[in-house]
Parts: sequence; C-alpha cells; structure tokens
Amino acid sequence: MSSKQINIGLIGLGTIGVGVAKILTQNKENLALRADIPVVLKRAVDLDLSRVKSLDMTGVALSTRAADILEDPEIDIVVEVIGGVNPARSFIETALKSGKHVVTSNKEVIAKHGLEFVEIAMEHKVNIYFEAAVGGGIPIIHALKNSLAANNIEKIFGIVNGTTNYILTKMTREGAAFEAVLKEAQALGYAEANPSADVDGYDVAYKLSILGSLAFNSHFSYEDIFFEGIRNINATDIRVASDLGYVIKLLAIGVAHGEDVELRVHPAMIEKSHPLANVNGSFNAIFVKGNYVNETMFYGPGAGELPTASAVVGDILDIAMSPDMDRAHPSIATNLKDKPIRPIGEIVSEYYLRIEVADEAGVLASIAQICGNHKVSIRAVQQKDPVSGNAELVLITHLVKEGSMQAALAEIKALPTVRAVHSLIRVGI
Amino acid sequence: MSSKQINIGLIGLGTIGVGVAKILTQNKENLALRADIPVVLKRAVDLDLSRVKSLDMTGVALSTRAADILEDPEIDIVVEVIGGVNPARSFIETALKSGKHVVTSNKEVIAKHGLEFVEIAMEHKVNIYFEAAVGGGIPIIHALKNSLAANNIEKIFGIVNGTTNYILTKMTREGAAFEAVLKEAQALGYAEANPSADVDGYDVAYKLSILGSLAFNSHFSYEDIFFEGIRNINATDIRVASDLGYVIKLLAIGVAHGEDVELRVHPAMIEKSHPLANVNGSFNAIFVKGNYVNETMFYGPGAGELPTASAVVGDILDIAMSPDMDRAHPSIATNLKDKPIRPIGEIVSEYYLRIEVADEAGVLASIAQICGNHKVSIRAVQQKDPVSGNAELVLITHLVKEGSMQAALAEIKALPTVRAVHSLIRVGI
Repeated sequence: MSSKQINIGLIGLGTIGVGVAKILTQNKENLALRADIPVVLKRAVDLDLSRVKSLDMTGVALSTRAADILEDPEIDIVVEVIGGVNPARSFIETALKSGKHVVTSNKEVIAKHGLEFVEIAMEHKVNIYFEAAVGGGIPIIHALKNSLAANNIEKIFGIVNGTTNYILTKMTREGAAFEAVLKEAQALGYAEANPSADVDGYDVAYKLSILGSLAFNSHFSYEDIFFEGIRNINATDIRVASDLGYVIKLLAIGVAHGEDVELRVHPAMIEKSHPLANVNGSFNAIFVKGNYVNETMFYGPGAGELPTASAVVGDILDIAMSPDMDRAHPSIATNLKDKPIRPIGEIVSEYYLRIEVADEAGVLASIAQICGNHKVSIRAVQQKDPVSGNAELVLITHLVKEGSMQAALAEIKALPTVRAVHSLIRVGI
Repeated sequence: MSSKQINIGLIGLGTIGVGVAKILTQNKENLALRADIPVVLKRAVDLDLSRVKSLDMTGVALSTRAADILEDPEIDIVVEVIGGVNPARSFIETALKSGKHVVTSNKEVIAKHGLEFVEIAMEHKVNIYFEAAVGGGIPIIHALKNSLAANNIEKIFGIVNGTTNYILTKMTREGAAFEAVLKEAQALGYAEANPSADVDGYDVAYKLSILGSLAFNSHFSYEDIFFEGIRNINATDIRVASDLGYVIKLLAIGVAHGEDVELRVHPAMIEKSHPLANVNGSFNAIFVKGNYVNETMFYGPGAGELPTASAVVGDILDIAMSPDMDRAHPSIATNLKDKPIRPIGEIVSEYYLRIEVADEAGVLASIAQICGNHKVSIRAVQQKDPVSGNAELVLITHLVKEGSMQAALAEIKALPTVRAVHSLIRVGI
C-alpha cells in the first residue's frame, strides 16, 4: 500500500459509479482533510464510458477492462458498483486475493456470497465494506456492526426499498393503480425496465438477509426468507386501509425469538401514527430495538446517485482512516452458530382480508364459521353495498398464526358463495 | 497491549458506569463474538462502591482510587464516566499519556478539552472515543466522523437533551407549569438536584460545540455559542403555540454558510407535522443534511443508564475490533481552518412575541409602528379578551434579522402602554 495516498479503482460507471466519481473528484480537498491522507480516484472502468463524459476526470485513467484495476499493484481499494452476481463476484474475489480492500454497493452479491468474501478477505488481511448495499445513504450497516454491537438486537424492521416506497406513496396520494404508477416510475428512471427485483421483493429479501445476519449474529440465506412484493396491492386496498387508519408499506421484518428468528418481507398495514407511515417517496427508515439501547431509528434517502455514493465514499474513508490499512476484523462475523428461520406458517400477525361474495344471506356466517374452526378470531367486519349481485367483505382478524389463517383462507376460497379473495395483507409490525 | 483479551478499567460507578458494568459483565459472550476477542472488565473504581453491590462483579477488582486503573499496565481502555471537568480531565490525560485508549461519555470535558486530548492521543498512538457524549444511544458521532464524512454538512439540528425534552413533553401534555414538572422530574431522578446544566442550556451548548465541530470541520468553543434554556417557557406559551399549530422544543441548530457558521441553542416553535415535534419524553433526534446524502435523521433514547452505556460499549468494541490497536486517526480533526460563528444578532428567524398591554386604543398601532421602523414584518396578530384593564397580544413575525427584532423589542418594552413582554420565542428551524 502506498503510504502517501489512497488509490481507488472504480469498477462500474452507472448511476452509483458516476456519483462516486463525482464525490471523489469534486470533494477531493475535504476528503483529504477528513482522512488525513489524499484519497485519489486513480482508475475507473466500464464497458460504456459515456456517462462520465460530462465530468472532469483529469488524472483518472479510464478504460473498459476491470483487469486494469485488478492488476494494478498501486490500487488500494477496489470499488465495485456494477451490481448483480456476475461478473461482480469474480472481480471482488480477485481484488481481495490481490490484497486490495473492497467497497461495494451490491446487495445481491453480498447477500449471496458475503460470507465467502469475508473469509477470503481475512485470509488476505484486507476488508470488504458494504454500507451502501442497504438503506442508501443511511449508515445502518455500521450501526449494526459497531455502534449498537453491545446489544442483543431484539427486532429490526423498516422500509428498505426506495422504488416500491415511491410507488406505494404515489398510489396512496393519487389513488392510482399499481401498473400506471410503475410505468410512470419507469419513464422517470425511478424503476428499472425489468422491475421484478424491486416490486417482487427480491431486493428487500437480499437486504433483510444482510441486516438480519448482522443484527442477529447469524448467517441467513435470502432464499430462506419469506418474501412477497407489491404487485397485488391495489388502489382499493390502499383506500380501505386509509379509511381504517392504516398506510400500506413494503416492510422487511426481523424478530429474534429464543431459539429461532423471524425474517419476512411483505406489504403490511401500519397505523398512520407510526413514524414509518410518514416515510414517503424513495426515503428509507429502519428501526432497531436492542436490549440495552431500546428503540432507535435511522432515516434517510434509500436510493439515488449521490446518497448511495455518499455511503460508498464513507466506507472508503473508513478504510483510509486506518493508517496501517491492516484492519482485518471481519465485516460479517465468521464465528457464529447459525439460528434457524421460523417458518412463515408459524409467525403471528393480524390480517386484513378482502373478499367478494355472493349477495346472499348466510355468507358471512359460513366464513365466520370457518374462521372459528381455525381459531381465527375476527376483530372487525365491513360489508360494502352489493354491486350486480356481489358484495365485498373486509375482515380484520386479531393476532393469529399465519398457518391457521392460510388454512381458513383455503376453505373460504372453496365456498361456493365466495367469488374471489382479492387480498390478504398482514396488519401491524 | 495484551493480545489475548482487551482489559477495561472503568472510572465512575454512577448511572452510566453501572450500565457499562452491567453490559460488560452480563453480555460478555456476545461481546467476545462481536469483537473476536474477549472484552474483560478488569477494574472498576469510584469513591462510592455501593451502586455495584447488586451486580455480580466476580473477577473485577473494585477500589476507590483511579490510580489503580491508570497505573495498571494491563489496562488497554480506560472508560471515564464520572462527568464534569475535574478530575475527569486529568484522568483522561494520564490515561492517554500512558498509552491507553479512552472512551468517555463526558460532553463537558470533551467540549472544553477535546482538541487537547486528541493531540495527546495522537502523540501516544492511541485514541479517544466519545459517542455517548451526544445523543445517548444514538450513533451520531460516528455518523459525522465516518459514515457521512464524504459530505459537506449543510445543516445539523435536533433535540439533544433528554431532561428538558421530558419536561417540555410533560408541560405540553398536561398543561403543567415548568417549576412543577421540574420538581417531579427531580423526584423521579430524570433531572438533577442542580438542574442548571440541563434547563439553562449548557448541556446542549456543550453537545452542539461537539456536533458542530465534527459536522463543519472546525473547532467551536461552547462559550462562543449562543444558548438559552427553557426556564422561561410557560404553560401559556405552550398552549398558544399549540393553537397556532406548533410544539415548543429545545433545539441545537447548526447551519453552514459560505464563510461562517450559525450555531445556536434555544427553545423553538416547530410545526406539529415536523418529525421533531413527535420526539417525546427523553428521546433525542438529530437531523443531518449533507450536500450528497441529502436529509438523514437519527432517533433514539437520549439518556438513561443502559442506552448511554450501549454507546460506551459500542466505542469499546470499535477499539477492540482494530486488532493491532494502533489506529490513531484523530477523533477530532486537528488540521482544520477554524470558521467563525455568526453573531446571534445576524441570524434570521421568525419570532413569536407575547406582550401584555394596556387595554387602550392605539397600542397595537404603536407596536406595529416600531416593528415597521425596524423592518420587522408581522405575519399574524392575536389579541385576547382584556382582563382587569390589560390585554394580551400575540405577534408572529415573518423572517427577520435577530438584531432588528431585538432593537424593536427594546423600544416596545419602553412603551408606556406595554405592561410586560412575557415571551420571545423563535419560530421554525
């Protein structure tokens, strides 16, 4: 490692990469003051270099081959912001094996291969930082790894996907339909052409596997996490929820129990007075409850070029501030006993159910009967005026096991008088 | 430094010290997992050892002399949680000069001598951490030092004193008077026997000098910070504020301008819809606006035995996780050009003014005339029904320079028809 300056190699010049390039070139002097050493963007690579044309990249070697960075012995820190597993994974591995620190914003590759990376990093006395992988500009990863590490974390939950929160906020404010808002978000660049990772919940599951692993001292594979996206949330449910005093948000939820851990991702109805109900647009917010610290909340922009780049550069500074550059404490603990994830059927929640039924006497009675048989206790029922022979029922249950709710639902669906079960949404956190 | 374990010496067994002792002894196994090395409370000292009698302190050497810790070559980290300047200052200096890291929760000694400590620490290749000095369990210090360090911070403001926020919350909820609530808070242990540091704003000024120095890359002496406490806030102002849509909170405010910086501490009326308006009881919340990250907020318990101890132990883990224990990056930058603090007369705010006047024709006209002469533009006036010949006027101004407001106020006070100026409270943030 050069002792006179910290040399950065930046792989990926998409949205976040351009943001990182901007901060490193435009805020050079302040970064050097903060780190007590110059932090220099030495190389930047991407197959497409067009996006940095408008920036002053004087002194930065631009090229199209990641190898130009990975093979340069003067590069101290490799910043990987291309996203996805391939080729990011092999770039990260090569960098670590070459004794270079890695900073990444890539939640997918961390969720899938983070532990392997940490083991390689420890072996080569370097580190891998990934603050930008969750919560954009919010320093939640460091909080869990260090600041709150004295605690046994009891609960962590929040809004960690800016795109879906933007869509839900717009649907709520304008009464608009999911598809229409999604199209608009795509046109504005807030949602991707293939929006599945966001709207189907993968992105949040990746992030929850990272948050949960850090919070609960374990390693959770995102594949073991129950997740549900927001495609089925419609304007009617949002309006009915609002009438009942709720807002619908896509949440990541983690709860520590004695022997196992609850980890789940799904839309949920939360009370309008809850602080998360007022987290709007692409903002994120994460609650952490520790046994000593009690309840803390971290709020900030969950996405975007500069907020995310702010977190990437924060990680760069964290490494640069360690003058010996030899701080090989693992970013993800490698010494822990894994805890099992509680099956989704075993979790307990309240439920909102919207059902279309024949406008006949006795329909509610038969539904209530099924619920009773499965010990699903109903807290409230609303019935809308019938339209063309069909009526709409909205039910809210008391706390009940998900398995019982699903069993009751299967029987309700099979009733000849039930035309459709439109929605099942969990209520509360 | 022992390479097999990290030895802690704890000076001070008051509220926070007992909390630190609890966490270090009761959560030993998890801390070792987090830090990858045992973190051992080796010694604890206080003149009064009675408060740890109920704890299992097996293996911890208890004594009444700080020297027992400072002179023990096996102690790696000295935790100072006695508060105040003397003798804390000399304990900290001795510890640093003996090559021991220091973790402190002591905002006063950091506000007054932080820079000296950092210089001594750097010379002896150790560090001093003080996360618990501001915001209790909220990791705001680390956020400013590292996570958000890529940014030029434009604004930082928030509620950073749990005692006064508890008092104001109770006054707001119950319509109670300051003195009554203070007495109750003292009886419950939420306020100290001598409450001056809290209610007169010193404590917040110490904290703002620390926050401001970190946020704005400068060194601010708390003595240069304008501060005003909450003694003059009364039930009437709180009620009138509420009618007008505001809540009164004691705020620390820092704003970066081109050449200077605004730093001030005073009660302010904030809109009920502002997130800070809903930060109640002893909770704290701090907003930070950076040029890249945009707006972030950190929320959590601002005081209390275990939340504050959580931050102290977080700092201990931060040091313990650096395996070489030789990470002497300064906690407060020592290489910066100091910026001047803008004089309070130059700041711009809206103002709330409650005046008792003679119930005579022309009084409002003469007040309005004075305001006009000083370019103080009035946004709203309310007049209450007169009682025994006196009427109460409430005025809210548009944005105006504090100096102009104060000049107008002096003339208003001198009017023969003005019986008393009850309150002048700044409005907005």
